[in-house]
Order: sequence, then structure tokens, then C-alpha cells
Amino acid sequence: MFAHNKRLQYTVRVNEPNPGLANLMLEQFGGPQGELAAAMRYFTQAVAEDDPGRKDMLFDIATEELSHLEVIGNIVVMLNKGAKGRLAEGVEEEGEMYRSITGAGNDSHITQVLYGAGAPLVNSGGVPWTAAYIDTIGEPTADLRSNIAAEARAKIVYERLINLTDDPGVKDALGFLMTREIAHQKSFEKALYSIAPNFPPGKLPGKPEFTSVYFNLSTGPGDERGPWNQGEKWEFVSTEEAQAVDGGSGQASVELPSAEAEVVQTLAARTASHTETDPLTGAELGMGVSPEGMQELALEGAGAGDTAMSSPPSRKR
Amino acid sequence: MFAHNKRLQYTVRVNEPNPGLANLMLEQFGGPQGELAAAMRYFTQAVAEDDPGRKDMLFDIATEELSHLEVIGNIVVMLNKGAKGRLAEGVEEEGEMYRSITGAGNDSHITQVLYGAGAPLVNSGGVPWTAAYIDTIGEPTADLRSNIAAEARAKIVYERLINLTDDPGVKDALGFLMTREIAHQKSFEKALYSIAPNFPPGKLPGKPEFTSVYFNLSTGPGDERGPWNQGEKWEFVSTEEAQAVDGGSGQASVELPSAEAEVVQTLAARTASHTETDPLTGAELGMGVSPEGMQELALEGAGAGDTAMSSPPSRKR
Amino acid sequence: MFAHNKRLQYTVRVNEPNPGLANLMLEQFGGPQGELAAAMRYFTQAVAEDDPGRKDMLFDIATEELSHLEVIGNIVVMLNKGAKGRLAEGVEEEGEMYRSITGAGNDSHITQVLYGAGAPLVNSGGVPWTAAYIDTIGEPTADLRSNIAAEARAKIVYERLINLTDDPGVKDALGFLMTREIAHQKSFEKALYSIAPNFPPGKLPGKPEFTSVYFNLSTGPGDERGPWNQGEKWEFVSTEEAQAVDGGSGQASVELPSAEAEVVQTLAARTASHTETDPLTGAELGMGVSPEGMQELALEGAGAGDTAMSSPPSRKR
Amino acid sequence: MFAHNKRLQYTVRVNEPNPGLANLMLEQFGGPQGELAAAMRYFTQAVAEDDPGRKDMLFDIATEELSHLEVIGNIVVMLNKGAKGRLAEGVEEEGEMYRSITGAGNDSHITQVLYGAGAPLVNSGGVPWTAAYIDTIGEPTADLRSNIAAEARAKIVYERLINLTDDPGVKDALGFLMTREIAHQKSFEKALYSIAPNFPPGKLPGKPEFTSVYFNLSTGPGDERGPWNQGEKWEFVSTEEAQAVDGGSGQASVELPSAEAEVVQTLAARTASHTETDPLTGAELGMGVSPEGMQELALEGAGAGDTAMSSPPSRKR
Amino acid sequence: MFAHNKRLQYTVRVNEPNPGLANLMLEQFGGPQGELAAAMRYFTQAVAEDDPGRKDMLFDIATEELSHLEVIGNIVVMLNKGAKGRLAEGVEEEGEMYRSITGAGNDSHITQVLYGAGAPLVNSGGVPWTAAYIDTIGEPTADLRSNIAAEARAKIVYERLINLTDDPGVKDALGFLMTREIAHQKSFEKALYSIAPNFPPGKLPGKPEFTSVYFNLSTGPGDERGPWNQGEKWEFVSTEEAQAVDGGSGQASVELPSAEAEVVQTLAARTASHTETDPLTGAELGMGVSPEGMQELALEGAGAGDTAMSSPPSRKR
Amino acid sequence: MFAHNKRLQYTVRVNEPNPGLANLMLEQFGGPQGELAAAMRYFTQAVAEDDPGRKDMLFDIATEELSHLEVIGNIVVMLNKGAKGRLAEGVEEEGEMYRSITGAGNDSHITQVLYGAGAPLVNSGGVPWTAAYIDTIGEPTADLRSNIAAEARAKIVYERLINLTDDPGVKDALGFLMTREIAHQKSFEKALYSIAPNFPPGKLPGKPEFTSVYFNLSTGPGDERGPWNQGEKWEFVSTEEAQAVDGGSGQASVELPSAEAEVVQTLAARTASHTETDPLTGAELGMGVSPEGMQELALEGAGAGDTAMSSPPSRKR
Repeated sequence: MFAHNKRLQYTVRVNEPNPGLANLMLEQFGGPQGELAAAMRYFTQAVAEDDPGRKDMLFDIATEELSHLEVIGNIVVMLNKGAKGRLAEGVEEEGEMYRSITGAGNDSHITQVLYGAGAPLVNSGGVPWTAAYIDTIGEPTADLRSNIAAEARAKIVYERLINLTDDPGVKDALGFLMTREIAHQKSFEKALYSIAPNFPPGKLPGKPEFTSVYFNLSTGPGDERGPWNQGEKWEFVSTEEAQAVDGGSGQASVELPSAEAEVVQTLAARTASHTETDPLTGAELGMGVSPEGMQELALEGAGAGDTAMSSPPSRKR
Repeated sequence: MFAHNKRLQYTVRVNEPNPGLANLMLEQFGGPQGELAAAMRYFTQAVAEDDPGRKDMLFDIATEELSHLEVIGNIVVMLNKGAKGRLAEGVEEEGEMYRSITGAGNDSHITQVLYGAGAPLVNSGGVPWTAAYIDTIGEPTADLRSNIAAEARAKIVYERLINLTDDPGVKDALGFLMTREIAHQKSFEKALYSIAPNFPPGKLPGKPEFTSVYFNLSTGPGDERGPWNQGEKWEFVSTEEAQAVDGGSGQASVELPSAEAEVVQTLAARTASHTETDPLTGAELGMGVSPEGMQELALEGAGAGDTAMSSPPSRKR
Repeated sequence: MFAHNKRLQYTVRVNEPNPGLANLMLEQFGGPQGELAAAMRYFTQAVAEDDPGRKDMLFDIATEELSHLEVIGNIVVMLNKGAKGRLAEGVEEEGEMYRSITGAGNDSHITQVLYGAGAPLVNSGGVPWTAAYIDTIGEPTADLRSNIAAEARAKIVYERLINLTDDPGVKDALGFLMTREIAHQKSFEKALYSIAPNFPPGKLPGKPEFTSVYFNLSTGPGDERGPWNQGEKWEFVSTEEAQAVDGGSGQASVELPSAEAEVVQTLAARTASHTETDPLTGAELGMGVSPEGMQELALEGAGAGDTAMSSPPSRKR
Repeated sequence: MFAHNKRLQYTVRVNEPNPGLANLMLEQFGGPQGELAAAMRYFTQAVAEDDPGRKDMLFDIATEELSHLEVIGNIVVMLNKGAKGRLAEGVEEEGEMYRSITGAGNDSHITQVLYGAGAPLVNSGGVPWTAAYIDTIGEPTADLRSNIAAEARAKIVYERLINLTDDPGVKDALGFLMTREIAHQKSFEKALYSIAPNFPPGKLPGKPEFTSVYFNLSTGPGDERGPWNQGEKWEFVSTEEAQAVDGGSGQASVELPSAEAEVVQTLAARTASHTETDPLTGAELGMGVSPEGMQELALEGAGAGDTAMSSPPSRKR
Repeated sequence: MFAHNKRLQYTVRVNEPNPGLANLMLEQFGGPQGELAAAMRYFTQAVAEDDPGRKDMLFDIATEELSHLEVIGNIVVMLNKGAKGRLAEGVEEEGEMYRSITGAGNDSHITQVLYGAGAPLVNSGGVPWTAAYIDTIGEPTADLRSNIAAEARAKIVYERLINLTDDPGVKDALGFLMTREIAHQKSFEKALYSIAPNFPPGKLPGKPEFTSVYFNLSTGPGDERGPWNQGEKWEFVSTEEAQAVDGGSGQASVELPSAEAEVVQTLAARTASHTETDPLTGAELGMGVSPEGMQELALEGAGAGDTAMSSPPSRKR
Repeated sequence: MFAHNKRLQYTVRVNEPNPGLANLMLEQFGGPQGELAAAMRYFTQAVAEDDPGRKDMLFDIATEELSHLEVIGNIVVMLNKGAKGRLAEGVEEEGEMYRSITGAGNDSHITQVLYGAGAPLVNSGGVPWTAAYIDTIGEPTADLRSNIAAEARAKIVYERLINLTDDPGVKDALGFLMTREIAHQKSFEKALYSIAPNFPPGKLPGKPEFTSVYFNLSTGPGDERGPWNQGEKWEFVSTEEAQAVDGGSGQASVELPSAEAEVVQTLAARTASHTETDPLTGAELGMGVSPEGMQELALEGAGAGDTAMSSPPSRKR
């Protein structure tokens, strides 16, 4: 179970309020690479993990990410503190609040109007956090690679936020959070490579004839080679050879029971396209046939149509 | 910051594996009324709260909800433990695993194929958790009411899960979790009523002429009265009187600068509907006009159309 | 069934077009606390409700919220009317429209480019409305509390929009809409308290030993007491005492059939982490091992790997 | 299967970088009317289609839309190229990057901070693309109409983007993309009308007594007639006559087995509203009842409540 | 504004409860082709429409769709009525409710556990309704085509539900709802063709050289021709000719200011791939390099890495 | 640009129709680890990539993934072919189709009713594909790690589907698709390690004092050490030492301008909680206070409340 201490893992010293900057920080609070995603990624893995070492590590890091969620949340709240008071008390002169709320040049209007300048679990564009961000699938050799990648991404987003910020206190705290992603990536790498073998992930081996093939499906100007497709480790295959590589027809087929085959035929006949005709279309009507001509046909067509309702005419080829 | 102890707040003793039941339990793990929603609801409020008492209470309860998330997650994991092994090791005979995975009669197939029989943050139907479930807006007299309601809902979903379960260990742990929702609701109620006044929420009073009006907009068989619209506290208004209650025209209007008014006119003219005609329509074509007639017009129409591409004909009335 | 009259419930008199303000108003059109959410919340409850009084009340208020959806929608449309014409007719000079569409400082660009300056069901940040906003669960003592909270939230969002607006006609109509949320909250409160008892919600009582316990899980600077955890109504429990409150081990367990236990063992062995090693990791490779050393090992490793594809080597400890 | 050539279908010549404009272009990259939606709409139809002609056409157009996705993606990337470099290398002076990223007046901050000024599959407001945009249902007479409509919408969004742009190279490429939507619409129209009959879609005819009825359910100022409800093709029915048009009671009913009927009664009794009372509500407490009076009752109520937990009192009418 | 009468537009007579069937019906309550989507589609268009005739028609049909939402909602509620009582009162014997809730073979477990067997705005798979289903863009020649397509789709889904149902009362009400989609489609067709010209939609003509071109981008077995690409109306172009159809290079380019060009170069250099090497990879480590070799390198690598943290080594080629 | 050949990359030979199995296959068509996610992940990276080698590789693999999307889509369509015909033509006897559609034990009902047994872009639980699944952020050392992880996950999901299937043709095609994920992972690994250094990702180094610290935040039974936190590379820090690791107060602060500080005070005072009282709450009312007492207070409270509407009483302590 969890316990909480109201002292933060890292002290947050914000120099001055800035709701626009607060909003950018939400990226790491409720965004896809943010701390909630990290905490929940590791927490749910920890709960389902059976290996004692990994389980403990996942709980350790999940707990730290929750603590980071708190740090970044406090940065948001401090940057928004003045805005929250002004909005709640409505003390601005007429029009002043509108100008301030639309002047930030980003989505801080949502944060303010909808969330009262609080700390909502949305990204910097106001998109609510979703568990679709979490890609855990319950196999450690895959999940640890996902964790490694997630830490790399989070590190980069922090780097960008640091580049955007000139408040020294915010920059300092962001630097701490960014650094911890580096440390976590190192731990997850150690955990991955302490499973051996860990590649290919899972249990089934691949089909040997396709594990080292590279299909060169994009051609034209700028075709390049590199260690990912050259050398004796690779069999390099051109586009033309890439079709029906199993040596079959390249078609899809299914054995249908005869009753089903029959009904599939009926459906095909009912919805067949008559490729030999050039039917008049709605677009052609809409392009400018004279209303007179249209109305004449309309009367005729409508008559046919009304009949069609109760007893549809047989299709004419 | 947070700390974690690997002892649960409540011991989980599952009698036997049951992936179908595991899946129902996800409702309170990653569902809208579940423990992640609760934990994040209170945690984000706590971070943004300035009142020392409420802030502490919100952190206390958020931390407990995280601990409950762990309890319900462990129930899911225990119920799924056998399924996880069988799926990962692929030891079943041909077809056996398909039958077991589709035999649960609920969405346990997703949990198994996609999530490896782990503990994903989805509801019992496989819908990923979203922060759209959290309705915090940053005003305590509204948020505390939202919390009260959230606890009431969570209590009910636990009650339903208890009714569905006959594993005594699961039932016991669910009973604990359900009870805590009752206790939390009591705390939030105390916190709401310790703000005075707390109604109406916020700062602006309403327009006095409309605060005690009840509009009887649904009529017909089954019209009823009750304390919500009868007695001297209420002014009861019928449908007809409910239109344009400000005494105006009931129309919407805007003062447009003349340049804008002009362009709005141009738009209106371009897209005007010609209500006096009865144009031939695509549906009428589709109802069965003879192909011969269609094709004649097609040639004519297409000719007009091709010209229309580069220089659209003036609209003809 | 429904009927509609083209007179609004409240006359909308907008002073001048303002697409930026229009966009903020979308919060109450297609936002989480907006009128569609309110209308659908009560409508779906009304359809499922059996109590004649509540059913009628829910239909009355649902119908009024639909009428409010129309009022706020008209405000949006009036504020956008000029922008709609300019965009559709493309009459601006080069670059002028770009400047006007990106100058609003909020998401009015989406409303204009994607929705043609219409009235889409999105919030002020362009997030589409979702039924995940509706928290109805089909038990009146919970749903009425949810309705009370929803009205409180909607009241606050209107209050904020009123503070942001200096167009007197918009302010006036918003004032009406805000006031009605107060009246609706009063009705829902009466409906809740006309069910007795209504607490705890539902039918199952809690476990008596946990209904009045307060777990003090957040400690450290700023620990506070209040009516939510002090006095003789409450048992106040510290963090340490909060573990395994059932008196058990605080562990999760399940009784697995022996066949399943065996396969779980197999899985554990296959994915065990070898905690006694310090394996070389990808991160370490990436930190700057000299290419010479890397390539030598690469050749060696690749050889082993190619073999591994068809017949994975036994794990070495 | 697919092949790719690195030459674009249409050359992209961007005059100068402009991240704000890049962001608007995302509407047709990852927005609801954009090229991914188009490509996936036709591709999935093609895969499931059995009619050889339509199948081929759908693959042709799906492949072209993928090629358009590449063109619009390249426009985005070129407009963002400078921003991407500045952000990744962090070479700006303090505060400069913040000003540039929030100065675009739209959501280019998300594109930059979260996506590194790349080409993400989001709309111009940062909302991730969702397959909920695709309305294919697997019946050609419906799906072809959906395709026709989708092309019409895409054409309009391109028209708006062209009006917003003054970069001649971007305008030129957008003009090509817009034109192709016209051509595709023409193809889909031909395909629809080459199925005969194609209206009503599907196989079941409607109930003849209701296929030509128009219910005039919106009345009041501005009531109008047009070809959609006037003339001898239509039966025009007023609001009052529109209720229970089957001639029944207009009520919903179900035959319940007696055991179920009984439990429904129990539920109704337990949650009945007592319409004859005027109960004190939480809102009334919150409006300002004096604390003294409140506390007296509180003690009394709490006592009753505590007992209620383990054995709820019988409901008193 | 709206008014409501508790008599339904069509009487609902359900023969017997069936929660599994109830769940399928949700497809037209809260699904993408369902009645809420229809009602909101037309309602939001009506609010934004300026043409008096279309505005009235859209309100008429929107109001009818709301009334249909009520009819289908009542079908759901009646089919669920017994289940709701059993679930709320918990009167089943142990295990019985679990069997009944998982025995329906579809997602009725969500409807029951989460929504209390009510009428939630989800599709038959439990996915919450989203406004992303609505494709209105604010141009009538596009929106009316979208409406036509939407009615066609809704007609088909009703047809499928009718085929699935053998409860005669449900079948009868579904038949009415299906028929009304036919009538609505007819109205929208009339409204579309009463705008002239309506093709191409919007105002800008296409580039004449591309409006009648058909690119044959899918080739191979099954290549077909039809009215969508054959005849003198079409120019038929092969894959090879389809590249760079503007006659340019088929490349994307942008004119970068020199400062930006420089930083782009820096970024390129920093992240360049060294295509001449064959670096050792993590996958190769994971494939089975002997632990001995790994550990030796690990020590070496880690040393380099630790230094790298504070001062990253210059990239070595 | 893209071209398409109607021959598949791998021949699909399905033994017999099976809509339930079709539905499981959707996991790799429109699920988070499926082929659309893969194709779009690499395609969008390719478009934004400047390094010629990586750009070409990303286009090669994106094109192959599109071809795999076609293969898995054809598997779905073949497995569903009979069901599609039966549903569209409605030839079953009464009740038969209901039984067959709900008998699959998974979400094939959605696929059939909503999508007509086609190939929709949803996962096996019916959740629509979302671009939120794609985690590309535009920095190659992060994105390549994300790609490596994505391939590992896709490999595992294919492995699970293979274990579930006993149709030899489906199994064979799945084996090909699974194997290609192994090959792609190998390519992405080579591409990652051909950037040097690639760790830490991005440009900013971390704070040296925190890059090698491990915080042991989860304690209690089961605490373990491993290469991720032991040895001389790591500094191991206990929970207590982990608070305020910067040596500060662990508090969050902001310097507020005095005007803002004042309004924040006003807000705090207005919403302060009165911790010394024990207010009567709504829950206590709901627990069973006698109606008589309630009504007396109700009258009193309501009087105060009505006044409060127009002029809220000062808060009383």
C-alpha cells in the first residue's frame, strides 16, 4: 500500500506566475509521455509481475513517478496561482480577463475556464489522458523494451520544456525530473538484459526463411543502404520479388459451406455494379442540368420511386 | 511524495482462478467509477487545493484510493494467474485455448490476447480509462459535491460486483473496498458543509426571478408533482409560458458590421434552397428510373458538368 | 416524444461578432459541464426511471436543458456569423484570413477551418463531446447526487464565462442559463431527500468496523484535522496501522490447480531475471563504447543470434 | 501489396517556414476529413468488397489517398523544418523559444513540444485521429453514399485552407489535392448509380404508410415548406398527430415473468420518492442555516446514522 | 425551444425481457449510426443554418430523431427491466447472477454492472458515444450529402437488427424507425438538389487538368474498368505516369533562412546514421552472447557511460 | 507515392469461416499493437525524417506494414465471409441469427451488426483505433527505441493469436507476419546503434548527482536487489532520504505580485473550511433523521435560502 508525505521529492521554487507556461507543463502531467503515464505503466506491471526482483523494481519506480507527478503538478499550480484567484473572484475590469485568457497563445483558456486553473490530467492541448497511452502487454521482454522507450521519450519532452523555460526555479526542477528518466532507463536496461535470451521476445521462434530478409519496398530517388539491410546478415529483396513470398497465388480464399456460398452469391448479385453502363449520377444533376429537364424527369422518376417503396423493381441490366 | 509497502491494505485470498470474473473486476480498476478515477480525482484536487485542512484530507484519501487500486488489481491478477501462464507458454492442445478464451461470455478475450491476462487500465468492456471521467473544476463547493457523488457511485458498483461473486475471498475484499467508499463519502460531506454558505456554489448569485421557477416542459400521461416543483417555494410554469421568458422575441440576433453583413448575404444567396421547385434527386435515380432515360440525361448533364468545372454556371432560378 | 418551437426560451442579443468569444462559449455547448451533457444525463435517466415523480421531473429538466443547448448554440452562431461568411466566400485579401484566424488566441481556428464557424459539439479546446462525461449508473440515490454535483459544476463554468464576457447581451443570456442550474440543483436535492433512507446509497450495509475509520495516509508538514476525521464519530488510524487491516498477511494469493501451477512455474523460469549478474545493456552500448570493440562483438553476437532464431539456446546462468 | 516511390505524386515547393500554418495543415493530415481517414475508409472497404469492379476502384483511390497523405505530410514537415531544428538543438536565447512557440495563435505548441515539429496524426487542434471518423458499415449502397459525402467534405476543408494560405507553393499543392476530391466524388457517384436499384439502400422495404410522411415537429416563427415536405409526394403531419402514430397508447411495456415482476416491485418500493413531503436538503443546509441549529441536529442525525450502517432503519413515510 | 410529451411517437410492446437483445439495440441508441448521432447532427446544423427552409426542415427532423432516441431507449429499458431489478436487489442465489450476466454472449455485462441495466449512450460494444461521429462541417452542399449517407447507414443497421430479432413488438417498432430513415433520406435529397449548382460543393472550381483524371494505382490480378474510370469523360492514367504529375521533381522543398538552415544542419549531424558500420545491437546482446563476454564489455562500457553523463563524448565515426 | 498490386505479400488460405476467430484477429488489424499502428508509426516518421538512410528504411518498412495490414485484413474478411452474406441477406430462420451472433463469446456481434462483418479498424473488443497509440516524438534516438519496443509487442500478440488458432492456413500466415516483426526489430536495432552516442537520448546531459541514484521507495516483504540498483554503478537511497533531495524545504512556492496575492487571499477566505465545527451533512439527513424534524428545519432553512439567492449572507463562523 501507499503512504504520502507532504514534502515533495524536489523543492519547487517558481519565480513568477505564468499561465501560458503552466499549460505547456501539462504535457508532462497529463500528456502521453508524462508522469501519470509513467506511474501507471510501471504500477500495473508491478501488480501483475511474478519475478520478485522486477516486481520490486517496478514498484520502486512507479512510486517515484507518482512523486514526480506531484512535483510537476505543483509547478503547474504555482504558475497558475494568480490566474486561479482572479478567475474565481472575478475581480478584473470588464474585458481584462478575456484579454488575459486569450493572450497566452496556447490552450491555457481551457485550463482556466474548464478546470479553474487547477492541475487537470490533460496534455498541453487539452486532450484528456487516456490509458491508450500505455502499451503494456504482459510479457517482460516486450514490456521492458517499452519502458526503455518510454523513458527515452519522457527525457526528450523534458529537454524541450527546459529549452522553453527561463524561470530558473522551474528549469531546476525540470532538470531533476529529466535526469531521473535517464536513471530509470538504465535500470530498465539492466532488467531487460538480465533475462537471457531476451530476443526474439516471447517463446515462438520465427520462420527461419524470413527472419533475415529485408524487403526494399520503397524505391526511387534517395534509395539508401545501411546496417539495417546490408551485409551478409541480410537477404535484400526487391519489390517485385516481395509479392506472394510463400510461392502461392497471392490471393485470399476460404472454404465456404455450400449454404453460405449460395447466400454470398445472392448478396453479390444484388449489389453487383453494372460496369457496362454510364449511369446518370447525383453529381451530374448537381453540376447544372437545367431545372426544366430535371423537373420533367423528377415527375417520372418519382412515380417509379413511389412504387419501388413497397415492391422494389427487379434490377435491369 | 509517495512511499510504498508491498503489504496490501487488505489481504486478498482468491479461492480459484476465474478469468471471466477477473474481467468484471476491471470495472473498479480501470472503469469510470473505479479506483484510478478516485485516486486521480482526489490527488489532482489535493495538489491544487490551498485550504490546509481539505488539502490534507484529499491527500489522505487519494493515497488510500491508490492503495485500493492495488487491492483490486491484485484480485484481477490472482483470478487471471492460471490463464496468464497457459497463454504465455502455449501449452494447450489445439483449439482448447480458443474455446477457453471465448467461453467466458465477456471481454476476457481482450484482457488475455492484448494484455496477456495482466491488469490493464480498462473497464470490464475493454474501454481504456480516460481522464474525461474526472469532473474536477477547481471550486471546492462543486468539487466536494462531485466527490460525494463519485463515492456513492463507486459504492453501488462494488455492491453489484459483490452480488455477482461467490468466491468468499473476493467477496470479503470487495466488502472492505465498498465500505471505505461509505466512509469517504462521510468525510467529503463533512468537508462540504464546513464551508458556509456552500449554496449556490461559487460567488455570483442567480437572477432572483428564475431561481425558484420550475418549467413543466414534459406533459402528457404520467405528469406528476413532488417537492421538487410544488409548494410555496416554487413557481410552476407551463410549456407555453416557458418561451422567451425574458419577454423578448425569442430570436437570436447579432449586430454585424456592414462588410460582414454583405458577405453573409452573398453566402446566403449562393447556397439558397429553391423551395418552389421539385428537383429530381439521386434517391429518385436510385429507385429505378430506366437506364435508357438516365443515360440520355447523363450525356447532357456531363457536358454541362465538364464546363462547370472551370467556370461554374450561374445559378438558375 | 418531443416538439420544438423556433422561439428560444431566452432571447439572444449579441452586440458584435467575436469568434474568439464564440469559442469559449463552446465549453457549455459541447464541453463536459455543458448543456448536451446535462440534457443527455437527465434524458437517459428519465427513460430508465420507474418512479413516476422522478421520471416526470427528469423529462422536464432534460427538455429544458435541450432548450438551453439551443440558447448557447445560438450565442455561438451569432458570435461566429461574420467569420462564417468570410471563410465560406473567401473574400479576404491574401494573408488577412490567416491573421484573423490565428489572432484569437484560442482554438477558434478549429471551429472555423474544420467546422465552418458553426456550432460543433466540442469543448473550448476542440475536444469532441463524449458520453464518458455522463456518470449515470442507474441507482437513484447515486444518480441524484451526481446530478446535484453536475448542476453545481455547470453553475461555476457559467460564472466564469460571465466574468470573461463584456458583451451585455451575451452576459444577460448566460446569467439566465446559470440561474437555471441553481434551480435544477434545488429540484434534484428535493428529489434525493424524498427518498429515505438515501445513505448509504444502495442496499448493502458496509462492514461496521470500517465505516467510521479515517486512515491518515498523508503525513508530514501541513497535517491537519477537521470534522472529516475528528470527534467521536471517527476512529483515526495512522499509516503503519493501515496495512493489512484485516489482520492477515497483506499478501495476495490464489489456489491454482496443479496443472496451472506448473505452467506458471515454467513461465517464471523462462522469464526469470538473473539478479546476480551485471549484464551489458543497450544503453551502455549507446553511451560510447568504441566502434572497434562493438564491431568485433557484433560479428560474434550475430553468429550466435542467427543460430538462435531457429533453435534458441538454453538460458545460461 | 503496396510499393512506394520516394517521388511524390505532386511536387511540394514551400516558400518559407511557418509552424502556425503547418499546424492548420494537420487538419487534412490527421483530421476527420483528412487523407488518412480517406485512405483507410477506402482501403478497408476494398479489402472487404467482393464486386471486382468496386474492389479495384477502391484500391485505386485508397492508394492515391495514401499518396496524398504523403503530400500533405510533406507540406507540414517543410513548414516546420526550421522550428524542428531550433527546438531539438535548443539554440535560442532564453525566452525566445517560448515566445515563438506561443506566438502562433494556434496549437502549434503541441506539435512542437510533444511531437518535435514532426507530422503527427492529429487534427489542427491536437486531437488524435480516431477510427471513429470512419463510417463504413459494409453495404455498398450506404458506403458509396458515405464516400461521396466524405469527398465533398474534404473538398470544402481544402477550399478553406487555400483561402487561408498565401504561400504560392502550398496553395498550388492544396489546389491539386482539392481537385482530386472532386474527381473521386465523381467516381463514387458512378459506382453508386451503377448499382440498380440503390434506393432504399439494403434489402428490406419500409413500411409503406410511413415512407412518405413528413412530421412537422418544429413550429413557431419561421415555419417553411419546400420540396422536402410539400407536393403530392408527401403527407404532411402536424405535431399533435405525430404521437403514437401506430394508433396505440404511446406507452412502453414488457411482459415480465412473475418472479421478475416481484423483484421490480421491491426495487420500486425501496427507492420510491415520497412526493407528499418537503424534506430538508443539503442545498438548504448550505444556504445558511445557523451553525447552532445545524450542530444540534447533527448529533441527533449522526447517532441515527451510525446505527443505520449495520441495520438500516425502515423507511418512514 | 423544446417540449416533451410522455406519449411515445410509436408504442413499444416488448414480449419478454432479454438483456442480450437489449444490448444489441444500444447500437441505435448510443452507437455511431444511432439516434443521438442523428438528432445532434441535424440539431447542430439547424442552429447554424441561415436558409429558412433548410433550418426549419433540420429542426423538424432533429426533433423527430430525439423522439426516436426515446423509442429505442424504451425498447432497451423494457428488455432490461427484469435484469435491472435482479441486479439492484441482489436476490439471486450465489453464482446465479454471474452465470446470467456472462451468458448473454455479448457486452450486456457492461450495461448491467456499470450502468445498472439502464440506457447508456454507448454502442453495442460498450464504447461511449462521441461527437467524432458527427461529420458536419458547415457547408450545406457537403452536409446534406453527409445527412443522406447517414440516413442510408442508419437504415441498414435497423435492417440488421430486424433480422436479428424475433420479438414481434420489437420488430414492429424497429420497422417504424427504419422506415423513417428512408423518408428522411428523401427529404435531404430534395434539399440538396434544391441548391443549384451543388457540384462541386463549395465555391472554388478544381484545376481543370485533374478533375477528370483517374489514376490506376492498383494493378495486378483483378484489374477492372467501370463507369468510374472508363469512357470519354475520363482520362485513364497508369501508375508510372502518376508520379510528380505537376511535371516537377516530385521532391518537397522549403526555403530556409540561413540561421535556420544552419541549425538544421547541426541537428542532422548530431543524429546522423553511420551507414558504413555494423554496430553491435541490443537485440544481438539479447540473442545469446555469453555472459562472460557481456560482463567484460559492461564494465568497460559503463565506465565510458558514467563519464558521458556529465560531459558526453564527441561522436566517433 | 504509393502503388498497389492486388497480389498479397503472403497467400491467405482459410480453412473455414469462423466469425469469432475473425474478431480476435482484429487485434492486429485495428488494435494498438496492430499493423495500422505499425504502418502509420513508420510512415509519419519517414515523412519527417531528414537522414537519408533512416528515411528510406522507414519508408521500406512502413510500406511492408501496409502490405501486412492487407494480409491480416484478408484473414478477417475470409473468416467473416459467410456471416456477411447471411446478415446482409437475412436468410436465417427467426432467432437463428441472434443465436449465432451472440454465440461467439466475444465481440463479433459489433463487427457484424455495426460493420456488416467487414474489416473495421477496431481492436478485438470493438474499440476504434486511435493515433494515441502512436508514440513518435520526432527524435530518432527515442523513436527508434519506441519502434524496437513496438515490434517486440507485435511479435508477442501474433504469438498469442497463433496459439489460439487451429486453422492451419491462418496459422501459417500469422507465422509469416510474426516473423517479419522479428526482422523489423533487427533493422531498427541496427539503425539505433548506428547513431553514436545514442544514450542518453537527445542533447542535454542529466544532473550528474542524480543519474546513478536508485530510490528504494517500495519496501516491506519482497524487497529485492538486482543489477538495476546494486553494484558500484548505483547509489542506493532509502525512502526517508528521498524527500526534498535538493536539500530544500520540499515545499512549492511562487512569488505572486501583490494584487494577485490579495485576490488569492480573498478566494481562500471565501472557501475556507471551518475545521472546528461538526456541521450537519446531507449524508446524515439521508441516514434517517425523522421527517418531522427535517421539515421544521426545512421551512426555516428555505426561508434563509430564498433570501440568500439575491444577497448571500455573510459567512458565520
